[in-house]
Amino acid sequence: MSQQDLGSNGQKERKDMKVLLVHAHPEPASFCAALRDAAVDTLCRNGHEVVVSDLYEQNFNPVAGPNDFGTRRNADYLVYSLEQRNGWQNRTIAPDIAREVERVLESDLLILNFPIFWFSMPAIMKGWIDRVFLSGAFFGGKRIYDRAELTGKKALVTATLGGRDHMFGPNGVHGELNGMLRHLLQGTLGYCGFQVLEPFFGYHVPYISDAERSRCLEAYRTHLGKIDTLPILRMPTLDDFDEVMRPLPKAT
Amino acid sequence: MSQQDLGSNGQKERKDMKVLLVHAHPEPASFCAALRDAAVDTLCRNGHEVVVSDLYEQNFNPVAGPNDFGTRRNADYLVYSLEQRNGWQNRTIAPDIAREVERVLESDLLILNFPIFWFSMPAIMKGWIDRVFLSGAFFGGKRIYDRAELTGKKALVTATLGGRDHMFGPNGVHGELNGMLRHLLQGTLGYCGFQVLEPFFGYHVPYISDAERSRCLEAYRTHLGKIDTLPILRMPTLDDFDEVMRPLPKAT
Repeated sequence: MSQQDLGSNGQKERKDMKVLLVHAHPEPASFCAALRDAAVDTLCRNGHEVVVSDLYEQNFNPVAGPNDFGTRRNADYLVYSLEQRNGWQNRTIAPDIAREVERVLESDLLILNFPIFWFSMPAIMKGWIDRVFLSGAFFGGKRIYDRAELTGKKALVTATLGGRDHMFGPNGVHGELNGMLRHLLQGTLGYCGFQVLEPFFGYHVPYISDAERSRCLEAYRTHLGKIDTLPILRMPTLDDFDEVMRPLPKAT
Repeated sequence: MSQQDLGSNGQKERKDMKVLLVHAHPEPASFCAALRDAAVDTLCRNGHEVVVSDLYEQNFNPVAGPNDFGTRRNADYLVYSLEQRNGWQNRTIAPDIAREVERVLESDLLILNFPIFWFSMPAIMKGWIDRVFLSGAFFGGKRIYDRAELTGKKALVTATLGGRDHMFGPNGVHGELNGMLRHLLQGTLGYCGFQVLEPFFGYHVPYISDAERSRCLEAYRTHLGKIDTLPILRMPTLDDFDEVMRPLPKAT
């Protein structure tokens, strides 16, 4: 194997990843959509295959509810996660969900591409998570983090925001942006076993010049070009916890 | 003023608060709905007035989009927050949003009552935030945290979850639950100026006995009985930042 095949962390570079890019923005011509297009172009040029789920375009239903299951384990009382497990096992999940579940399962890399609304995803993407991240298929009772079903897959969050970069970090007014997004980076993606890559953020987007937008797009192409060597965020390991997830005494 | 009128932090107890309780759960008979009912009952008994926005019952639309504005500042390109400011100023916000905005503005206490889905709110409630928390009405460019429009109001998060309490905290597998919810507690409620009260969590809800559920409801009634003296979560103050929100040198 030549040096060119190794990333700086020694991983073999993948030239044939299947990528699922989930995009959600209410403005079709947004800068966020330009980031989506830059990702599709860059990744395809680099030999990968990209499928896009454009949630506004699909008019995706984000509201988890009783109609998400063709038949119910308990038709009188809805415990959503228990019906997910049952529905996945018996293949009775609603078709709009099942299609997205299959797309995630077939992919090596999931990219979530969105404008930050209230330090999280727009509701249409939050509902994509609520309905598609199936208990039973993506994780189970004790199968979370490094024991979850999606270990081996990578995930990248790409997000635009109005705030400036100096508003974040240990001394920034809002604190760490990755900390604000911990419910997503750790609590959702890490929880299901994804290797969560260092996110890409486009700051101050509604207010920047065309030249600044071009530089941001170029920086994103560079970020994507290093997809095999990007830092991976640290997640909990179940090695540190017992079978009911109480912390084990630390080895001395 | 007698001792009975003072909470332990010396605040005068309010007997006549207007409370807006926003509830979102896909199962009408859920334990989360029992918490809602316990809140309505306890707060009314204590002399407060409670309005409930039940988002599943209302079939609330959570998807922020171009139809949220009767007339647009820019009909060709949607910057959602800029249209919110314009729509609020010109009273052209869609009626389903305007009604909820008025409810928040008229209230002294906002309660968000929901099951934790992916360490955050269900999408239907996230979309209530996306569409109702108006730029211009609730906060402005530099009017955030202790300079925001909603200072003086209180907010309480009441949430149910499947996890056990020992899974949270500094040594828990997931870390601090309030940290997971920072996008909501700080990044949404604190950002708009609310005094954010210590949340109330019902743990392990799908798996506990009826007796445990009764104890949890009783604990919640006690929590609500102390509404004037509950700890308030610490938020950033703009006193520590300059006019572009760079940190000021610390006084020595």
